[in-house]
Amino acid sequence: MFLTASGWKTRQFREISMKINSSIATLPGSYLFAEIASRVSAFEEAHPDAQVLRLGIGDVTRPLSPYVARKFADAALGMATQEGFRGYPPGEGYAFLVEKINRHDYSSRGVSLKDSEIFISDGAKTDAAAIQELFSQDAVIALTDPVYPVYVDSNAMAGRLGEYVDGKWTRAVYLPATAENDFEPPLPDKKADVLYLCYPNNPTGTVLTRTQLKKYVDWARENDALIIFDAAYKAFVTSDDIPLSIYEIEGAKDVAIECCSFSKTAGFTGVRCAYTVIPHSVMGLDGNGEKVSLNRMWKRRTGSKNNGVSYPVQAAAAAVYDTKGQEETRQNIRYYLDNAGVILDTLRKGGLSVYGGVDAPYIWMRTPDNMPSWNFFDFLLNKAHVVGTPGAGFGPCGEGYFRLTAFGSRESAAEASARIIGIL
Amino acid sequence: MFLTASGWKTRQFREISMKINSSIATLPGSYLFAEIASRVSAFEEAHPDAQVLRLGIGDVTRPLSPYVARKFADAALGMATQEGFRGYPPGEGYAFLVEKINRHDYSSRGVSLKDSEIFISDGAKTDAAAIQELFSQDAVIALTDPVYPVYVDSNAMAGRLGEYVDGKWTRAVYLPATAENDFEPPLPDKKADVLYLCYPNNPTGTVLTRTQLKKYVDWARENDALIIFDAAYKAFVTSDDIPLSIYEIEGAKDVAIECCSFSKTAGFTGVRCAYTVIPHSVMGLDGNGEKVSLNRMWKRRTGSKNNGVSYPVQAAAAAVYDTKGQEETRQNIRYYLDNAGVILDTLRKGGLSVYGGVDAPYIWMRTPDNMPSWNFFDFLLNKAHVVGTPGAGFGPCGEGYFRLTAFGSRESAAEASARIIGIL
Repeated sequence: MFLTASGWKTRQFREISMKINSSIATLPGSYLFAEIASRVSAFEEAHPDAQVLRLGIGDVTRPLSPYVARKFADAALGMATQEGFRGYPPGEGYAFLVEKINRHDYSSRGVSLKDSEIFISDGAKTDAAAIQELFSQDAVIALTDPVYPVYVDSNAMAGRLGEYVDGKWTRAVYLPATAENDFEPPLPDKKADVLYLCYPNNPTGTVLTRTQLKKYVDWARENDALIIFDAAYKAFVTSDDIPLSIYEIEGAKDVAIECCSFSKTAGFTGVRCAYTVIPHSVMGLDGNGEKVSLNRMWKRRTGSKNNGVSYPVQAAAAAVYDTKGQEETRQNIRYYLDNAGVILDTLRKGGLSVYGGVDAPYIWMRTPDNMPSWNFFDFLLNKAHVVGTPGAGFGPCGEGYFRLTAFGSRESAAEASARIIGIL
Repeated sequence: MFLTASGWKTRQFREISMKINSSIATLPGSYLFAEIASRVSAFEEAHPDAQVLRLGIGDVTRPLSPYVARKFADAALGMATQEGFRGYPPGEGYAFLVEKINRHDYSSRGVSLKDSEIFISDGAKTDAAAIQELFSQDAVIALTDPVYPVYVDSNAMAGRLGEYVDGKWTRAVYLPATAENDFEPPLPDKKADVLYLCYPNNPTGTVLTRTQLKKYVDWARENDALIIFDAAYKAFVTSDDIPLSIYEIEGAKDVAIECCSFSKTAGFTGVRCAYTVIPHSVMGLDGNGEKVSLNRMWKRRTGSKNNGVSYPVQAAAAAVYDTKGQEETRQNIRYYLDNAGVILDTLRKGGLSVYGGVDAPYIWMRTPDNMPSWNFFDFLLNKAHVVGTPGAGFGPCGEGYFRLTAFGSRESAAEASARIIGIL
């Protein structure tokens, strides 16, 4: 240590050592799909001739609707003309897109929302990860288990989940969803401020009926809690009694925020567009006990932190709602659901216990002989050259399960299921 | 209060009252440009015939380079084909874009970076607002004053700036940049962990020479601090001794993160693409005193919190670096700089004190007769139908100043300057 003009110093001219957010630095493991990608590429390097079938990450593979792509391209070309040029988009999204979402996805189903309750973003993941910025630092988070990792990681990075001990965060409330309870998670048995629900569910592919979903809405109303409802997979719902929006449930507009996406609905994983609904009636309490509108908070947050979504991307999203766009995107959804049917059938006939896959693009299977799910991942990759997602990557109750996606081609769905059965 | 099956309750079936992040709820005022937009639209409603000239928000108005738009559209159309379709983009950006950025913006200028040190995003604002998630909660933030509001608001929302008293945050370190010190802010006179610098500067339009910038880099190295360098306006630099990147300064790679954008460089405000550089040598200390790579933290953070940038948008950004793309985008830059010249000349001849506008698209003027800047805003809007940005919106030292942008047409630059002189 030595004294300089500006005070005591321990060192000089070296890398900085400013204090960082330990909650990010010490977050356990790497992001699930990054870990999978890294194992797969190690395998492929070692076995360059293996024909690996990927039913791991939930990424679509069917080309975009030609009609939607045409509208996307037209808007892009228009940007080179004085009439078609657009600068900064409105922070909450273009009215032309918001109005279409409201009409097609809500009012047509009897849900009445104001356009100002809908916010356009570049992804449901972006919003699902950022929404926790609205919560107080000591808010208690309830999560279904298994769960989409983004809800966990985003709260953990904010330092809201306590310590990570034996695969669980000490301050989180876990709600198991397993075959034993028919994938219907129990209500929190202790105080929780926020509950994340994703239905149709990622990763299990299971759904909740209106009656089942109402239980959680009632719980939230009775317990002054907030529900973050992730409906990214709603386009896959085929059964009549399954809600497409939590706002189909009475009372939900006071207690729920809903995240939706064009990623799976319209094959937009590479285009990037989504939306989040925050009704004006959803309120929280600030440090002084004053009621605060979460819609207003979100508007302020997003207005200060980003500049909205690409204009041509929003033009493309709006085209999804046109007759031709609907027709072409629904064909792709049907194709993926038929893939799911093929996988379900084959695995079931092979004697495996399988769930989901009817109103969702995911098939959730028990690993054979209770094999730990990462072991099964490696076993499957090495013996069958098939990539899936280990259930344990989604939470402790995912252990002993494995996720397959229906987003590939018909051929690879059939071939992969046959290979799985073949190595048992 | 009454007892239910699940415990004591004070009320039932009402809006939720979960505790929220008071730092967002109580953030003073609304976002600067939202406030301006609201005053302008009130004026226009009251005066429907007024021909309002907008030199307020820094949004570009020239159409996109036709070459870039063509590449953008081609990629969009390709998404409807099996060969051209792309799903989730790589979280850190497509290699085809990262490589071009590295070659054209860095190695060509003698700055050696690894591709893995460059991260693509949907906006420099997004990154400038999110980068604070890497800092510890008690990090002390130093800011030039006046300053781009995003640095302040993002840290304030995270609860890092203390209380807002008399226009200043109690925990922030303010570095005044005014005509009195030739817009060269002093070094922090107390401990600061992070320093935000934006050069060419928004809002003042002033720049730092290499020698001037080196002072801050040396300070950061000596004081274990981090510099967030916002170079969003670097395409406007015309003078030889002005650095385009902080990495042109020796030692900066150990202490600086740099945010860049295609918004102003290539008219991408409505397209949305940017990049941030985090060298592997930039380190911080976690709670246990362990060294942590900020590059690794950022990779983990972005991988967990969003799904990257639209593929056609990245294809468009890559086209900016092609010969034709460079030619066409540089024409626009030249056009805006010539606008700035017209505004500078006219106001100077009219007797006003004006700064910036040579290596930047912003002109920073003293208000006449020391008029408070919001008063001058209203005066100008009402008397001359010209919209600018009140200096006070950028911080206490912006009081008595006013920002004009050169992003409009030549005609409106000339007409607005003439009107300003006309009402003095």
